[in-house]
Amino acid sequence: MGKETGFISEIGEFELIDRLKNILPGIDNSDVLVGIGDDTAVIKVNEEESWLVTCDIQIEDRHFRQKHTTFYQLGKRAMAVNLSDIAAMGGDPCFALVSLGLPPDLRLTNYDALFEGMRDQLAEYNANIIGGNLAKSEEKLIIDITLIGKIKTKNVVQRKGANIGDQIFVTGVLGESGAGLALLEKFGDQFPNKYQHLVDRHLAPRPQVAIGKQLASQNLVSAMIDLSDGLASDLNHICKMNQVGAHINFKALPFSRDVEEVSQICGVNLEHLVLHSGEDYQLLFTVNESIPESEIDTIAKKENVPVTAIGTIGPLSSGYILTDLQGNLKNLNPSGWDHFKKSGNKSEVK
Amino acid sequence: MGKETGFISEIGEFELIDRLKNILPGIDNSDVLVGIGDDTAVIKVNEEESWLVTCDIQIEDRHFRQKHTTFYQLGKRAMAVNLSDIAAMGGDPCFALVSLGLPPDLRLTNYDALFEGMRDQLAEYNANIIGGNLAKSEEKLIIDITLIGKIKTKNVVQRKGANIGDQIFVTGVLGESGAGLALLEKFGDQFPNKYQHLVDRHLAPRPQVAIGKQLASQNLVSAMIDLSDGLASDLNHICKMNQVGAHINFKALPFSRDVEEVSQICGVNLEHLVLHSGEDYQLLFTVNESIPESEIDTIAKKENVPVTAIGTIGPLSSGYILTDLQGNLKNLNPSGWDHFKKSGNKSEVK
Repeated sequence: MGKETGFISEIGEFELIDRLKNILPGIDNSDVLVGIGDDTAVIKVNEEESWLVTCDIQIEDRHFRQKHTTFYQLGKRAMAVNLSDIAAMGGDPCFALVSLGLPPDLRLTNYDALFEGMRDQLAEYNANIIGGNLAKSEEKLIIDITLIGKIKTKNVVQRKGANIGDQIFVTGVLGESGAGLALLEKFGDQFPNKYQHLVDRHLAPRPQVAIGKQLASQNLVSAMIDLSDGLASDLNHICKMNQVGAHINFKALPFSRDVEEVSQICGVNLEHLVLHSGEDYQLLFTVNESIPESEIDTIAKKENVPVTAIGTIGPLSSGYILTDLQGNLKNLNPSGWDHFKKSGNKSEVK
Repeated sequence: MGKETGFISEIGEFELIDRLKNILPGIDNSDVLVGIGDDTAVIKVNEEESWLVTCDIQIEDRHFRQKHTTFYQLGKRAMAVNLSDIAAMGGDPCFALVSLGLPPDLRLTNYDALFEGMRDQLAEYNANIIGGNLAKSEEKLIIDITLIGKIKTKNVVQRKGANIGDQIFVTGVLGESGAGLALLEKFGDQFPNKYQHLVDRHLAPRPQVAIGKQLASQNLVSAMIDLSDGLASDLNHICKMNQVGAHINFKALPFSRDVEEVSQICGVNLEHLVLHSGEDYQLLFTVNESIPESEIDTIAKKENVPVTAIGTIGPLSSGYILTDLQGNLKNLNPSGWDHFKKSGNKSEVK
């Protein structure tokens, strides 16, 4: 057992990943352009083309609850989570492998619906399920999807690349998935009708594949990540990777009146919903200050996706800072959805 | 819920996979050379080269037990299972993605050892872990690995391709993994010392990557599969795929005196161990009758792996037949390790 007797519950997901630096060797293969530590791995296939490979494991009652979702939605959602990782690199999704751990009391109709959801979510991109694996799980449904995408090697966007002075942008609106989950947790399926769209955002997120591809192919973006753990946590990945700081203005963040209302109704702090609750599956990206904002606007209009400037990248020494709703400067807590920590920086909602 | 109210426990793994034919569309992409239903998917990268992609999910207490194994062995084993699928197509393993569901009480030293085992198993083939995903699992350790291999497109060997008259061969010896498991189940770690090699075979199987590659690159093989579920079940996959029958002679099967002894000591039927217990991770392949056996022998000698002719492929009408130890002809029961069925054709041991 060695000297160290700690348990994985004592450290967070990102520390567990960091730990692998000491275990796994540097990859002596020039075809691996990006390895562990980004949204997807990138493998050079030839001088022009690279493949993106990502996987994501979703476990019942940790990542989803059967009482909140249909199996069709669950299939779509599990696939969307992976599509979002391909979007964050600027790629084109192509091929999926599906590994399932199936509890014995799963209905065949639900098994079918799960695959139908995955199939339909992929069909939007002409992508297909090409393989996988089935096993029995004693109790919990387990869904692990591997998704392969393609991209021109010169267009690959990584977490690495953000520079001091870059503007920070996000697509879409924030906090809707967290608000949807808060409603489900409080009201079950009896939540007020007018918030159906928030619940939909949680149960059936829409990955930003098209605009991710546009931004990457036009080489407008210095770094990009998808918002899976929450803006505060995901932006922090970019800052740590690039040894820079950031300054976000809460008032500039795109969130709706509905999210504010749900914050009050459900008793969940608004900052928490918008910055820390995660699963919005929007894209966050940084843009060199020399690039006029109009170029980003043009793409946003073309793809019909709102894009908002929310802050700037600064030197590491200037910190990780938020101007809050009251106009006060404070440190931005990088906490978000963490799969491991028992307490401390864990999301209040999940 | 629809009209059908059956549960997945009522049908087997292979029926669940068959069911997908009605759900998933035919793949309208000429780059996908092999989709669902073989050991790996095959994607054409260019005219010369294809990639093999496979995944395998292993769940604690279903596929392994912590009391029987070290975490280092477990890491090696989980990777070996995937390497064996690449071997069965004749490919070269290259890149792995590792998805883990980690119970909170897992020790950090065991987390490290798990990755060390996976790393070392890959290092034999100059292959690397390039990505993955970590999540929390309430109780059981879950290991899902995606492995990518490369192969010259013209060398791809599939389950499809066996013809009437082909000879059937297996690499290595059979029943050792099943015997090792039977010993562990009966004696725990107090099994008789002389059978250590059988337990090792169970805990640390050695995938037949090198000979798989040789057989494929010399175009000697009409069909190939790895023995994960047991010879009787895996050969049946080839027979069903090719609409043919087979005749196996039990006396010709390669198994050792030690396996016979364990059969008696542990009270497990010898036919069960050799034909139905699975997890030997040897290769089974078919060879056109025009190819002299000496060509197979040459490769076997070169790779230092025993290869044994065990029977022949016949017409579908001649059935799926075994000449048993007593010389009697009988139907060969295609049962093996099935992850789903509660009873019936499930292995006695697992």
